[in-house]
Amino acid sequence: MPQPTPDIDRIFHALGDPTRRALLEQLSDGPKSVSKLAEPLAISLAAVVQHLQVLEECGLVRTEKSGRVRTCRIEPTGLDAAAGWISARRSRWEQRLDTLGEMLQEVAEDEDSSSL
Amino acid sequence: MPQPTPDIDRIFHALGDPTRRALLEQLSDGPKSVSKLAEPLAISLAAVVQHLQVLEECGLVRTEKSGRVRTCRIEPTGLDAAAGWISARRSRWEQRLDTLGEMLQEVAEDEDSSSL
Repeated sequence: MPQPTPDIDRIFHALGDPTRRALLEQLSDGPKSVSKLAEPLAISLAAVVQHLQVLEECGLVRTEKSGRVRTCRIEPTGLDAAAGWISARRSRWEQRLDTLGEMLQEVAEDEDSSSL
Repeated sequence: MPQPTPDIDRIFHALGDPTRRALLEQLSDGPKSVSKLAEPLAISLAAVVQHLQVLEECGLVRTEKSGRVRTCRIEPTGLDAAAGWISARRSRWEQRLDTLGEMLQEVAEDEDSSSL
């Protein structure tokens, strides 16, 4: 059975929603208040708050309350965990292709030398 | 409203499941048959087939049937799309930090020169 990796599960699940990605998109330009984040979105403020909660719980976003304003910012460690998982799979797959390429090269060279 | 980007939605959704990630993990070592992929997993073959279908539909895996054996392999374009989305957000966020750093540097230099 695969080892449970709840954080990565929740991070990818969170990234699977277009509104949540739109929020991260906005936050990649810098920290913003919840109401500022809600402005361009055609959904209720309550729905935005819920999406932000999902993003915060899985470590993709950090929020801070000062007086009546809650400011949100990207938490890079969350994005890094997701990117890290993908790039590890990608590089193992590429390494395998390299090994295959080298094996084919060796076979070709053996054939060349035996045909001399 | 965020633009609909169904592929990225489905890719991240697919990656949000530990069994599907375990399948990709296995496939990053090279192509494998469905029954070989099912071996280390404590779930039914039917469940494995369903997970593979999700992975294939969103472009993370390619499968090919030869006789009675279906061989599965990683489709790198799917992983690249997900990695690309993350790294674009990450680099925009970093660029903003750089700009902030430069602005602080300029302010510090202005203060230094005005205090001379």
